[in-house]
Amino acid sequence: MNPLLNLPPKERGLRLETLRKLMSEAGVDAILVSDNANLFHNLGRVIAGYGYIPREGNPQYFVRRPVGLHGVGVHYISKPEQIAEHITLSGTLGLELDLLSYSMAERLRKAFPGVEIVNISPLLRKSRAVKTPYEQQLMRESGVAQERVYRNIPRLYSDGMTDIEFQVELEKASRLEGCLGQFRISGSSMELYMGNILAGDNADTPSPYDFAMGGEGLNPSLPVGANGTLIRRGQTVMVDINGDYTGYMTDMTRTFCPGDPSELNPLALKAHQLSIDICNACAETARPGVVASDLYKLAAGMVENAGLEKYFMGHRQKAGFIGHGLGIEINELPVIAPKSRDILAEGNAIAIEPKFVIPGTGAVGIENTYLLTSSGMESITNAPVEIRSLS
Amino acid sequence: MNPLLNLPPKERGLRLETLRKLMSEAGVDAILVSDNANLFHNLGRVIAGYGYIPREGNPQYFVRRPVGLHGVGVHYISKPEQIAEHITLSGTLGLELDLLSYSMAERLRKAFPGVEIVNISPLLRKSRAVKTPYEQQLMRESGVAQERVYRNIPRLYSDGMTDIEFQVELEKASRLEGCLGQFRISGSSMELYMGNILAGDNADTPSPYDFAMGGEGLNPSLPVGANGTLIRRGQTVMVDINGDYTGYMTDMTRTFCPGDPSELNPLALKAHQLSIDICNACAETARPGVVASDLYKLAAGMVENAGLEKYFMGHRQKAGFIGHGLGIEINELPVIAPKSRDILAEGNAIAIEPKFVIPGTGAVGIENTYLLTSSGMESITNAPVEIRSLS
Repeated sequence: MNPLLNLPPKERGLRLETLRKLMSEAGVDAILVSDNANLFHNLGRVIAGYGYIPREGNPQYFVRRPVGLHGVGVHYISKPEQIAEHITLSGTLGLELDLLSYSMAERLRKAFPGVEIVNISPLLRKSRAVKTPYEQQLMRESGVAQERVYRNIPRLYSDGMTDIEFQVELEKASRLEGCLGQFRISGSSMELYMGNILAGDNADTPSPYDFAMGGEGLNPSLPVGANGTLIRRGQTVMVDINGDYTGYMTDMTRTFCPGDPSELNPLALKAHQLSIDICNACAETARPGVVASDLYKLAAGMVENAGLEKYFMGHRQKAGFIGHGLGIEINELPVIAPKSRDILAEGNAIAIEPKFVIPGTGAVGIENTYLLTSSGMESITNAPVEIRSLS
Repeated sequence: MNPLLNLPPKERGLRLETLRKLMSEAGVDAILVSDNANLFHNLGRVIAGYGYIPREGNPQYFVRRPVGLHGVGVHYISKPEQIAEHITLSGTLGLELDLLSYSMAERLRKAFPGVEIVNISPLLRKSRAVKTPYEQQLMRESGVAQERVYRNIPRLYSDGMTDIEFQVELEKASRLEGCLGQFRISGSSMELYMGNILAGDNADTPSPYDFAMGGEGLNPSLPVGANGTLIRRGQTVMVDINGDYTGYMTDMTRTFCPGDPSELNPLALKAHQLSIDICNACAETARPGVVASDLYKLAAGMVENAGLEKYFMGHRQKAGFIGHGLGIEINELPVIAPKSRDILAEGNAIAIEPKFVIPGTGAVGIENTYLLTSSGMESITNAPVEIRSLS
């Protein structure tokens, strides 16, 4: 086996098969992947370089770094133009045009004169949306590790802490449990350090990033999350911290408060229970073949019945989705949003996060990561769902 | 003043002036920036949206998120195509073609029919290479905070720690000192969580990323840095941890070891002293107008004289540079590399990192961040430079 490939041969074969089926449907003759997430999916490791996968024939690999991965089909290169020296191709070549910079895409286009360049970003997103049993196992492992951290959260809090001091304890606990810290997001516009801890009204501060919740952050260079707010009785702390323990992420949110949760604003308690109910309803409804937007509508209907629209998915600023696929990256397919055309498929990994922001109290609600099996959704993030006391 | 702009008007004016001078030289009529680092440079905050800067006339801002930043010249949009509805432009429009995805660049090109699209990535890199006094102050503040953490490092170590356990303590200390954690890198191919801690021979593991040092990492999805190595006597621990405290990063590396540093392999001690000497020589030589590659040659010459080429900038795998500009991102101009055509300019912020990997011992050397003034380089990362004992 090629020392570059860091996957069991069967697993690698399975992923190639899925990819080639999609290539065949799309009429693409060969693809070239270079995005770290796509390389990790394809090779089982991140390299600086390119994976070339023809619809027929053997894949070839063009490596800049690291040194030392010589093997069949591996070529060391210093410039992407050298790829063309090793390849005979007519027809269509798929590139990650939603991710590759314009400049790099043009360089590659010029390196393959006479070849038609097509965009395979949607195809690659699709190929990663269905997780193999091997990938599901890695996600389960992340879920178990993340759950261990979450169960222990009340013990990480001391009276008088700010949100950021509390977050630092959560970061440390996560890292000691094996969290890689890396928070992979497709595209370059979203940024977050390790997770989002929102205390009190900071949850209502709009952020530029397309996450379900906002927060001011510590600096306008990274305006999201904890901002130094003192954690107070009568207010909530929402914890949504990094679940990447295996290269595959789980996403879990839980809500906490100092003191007795029953003393919180009844509106917040009602909204929190509704979030749990929505997760359960989505989990019971989701099946392979269900339209993703229907899950959104189910949730929106429950919120409307409860009269809580004003607070749903944010208050001053609202997110346009209640859930998202995830795995190697936090924003994979399917998207659970009103206009999503995605259809749920067996093997999807989906985070559902129906959250509310109650002014004066803070954010409430939960988020779970589910694997979609033939018989329904299975939660792999199983820390207690109720609002837990930090005291 | 426009509530969107988070910079003192004078500072904003200064940055606009630099930009427009470069636009004028390049014959660009207007530019559109959307990269987070460029937006932060331009507005003093990150938004999801676009800054439109014509060579003459008032800038305009096209915002998707966050809500609430209404003001003169601010337009809320949901799609980039809407930008064209607000703009009358003939001539050339500069886009960040080295960063924008091919798909997004094409959407923008189609939204401005008859307008010539040019690449302004190099121009924007140039505009950020010279730091204003205001930016220099933010970098100094990062340097002071980072120095406080570094001075305290020996107290964070306990016998029997692995590199990752030690790193977790460094992460916590940095965060409590105000470190934002965010490690901004231009382009999407380089990834790192919080910093690079290298113990013993793990420093010699080649990484795919184009950093000065490697390391295996904890997982093939993020193959860089600490890998769980036990920290041992007779081996070094190189600490190169995040210095982003203000949105502007400093970059500092120091070397530590358990036990008495004088017991280390004499080759390692010699190489470490040479690293200090190279930093000092570079600092004494660098002046506005000096060619960046000459600094590299100066360093390479000193290494050759000492007969340490084999270990310089890596052993199994070598980095091709000894220094780099930095500020909002870790990889700014100028690049201190053999073929760099950059010429040093007053206001540059430059990290110099002449490092060595000694097999059996680990990584040695230091890194400092310097501001280039009219009279020379001033280090803003001033923790002790000698190899310090962790015991």
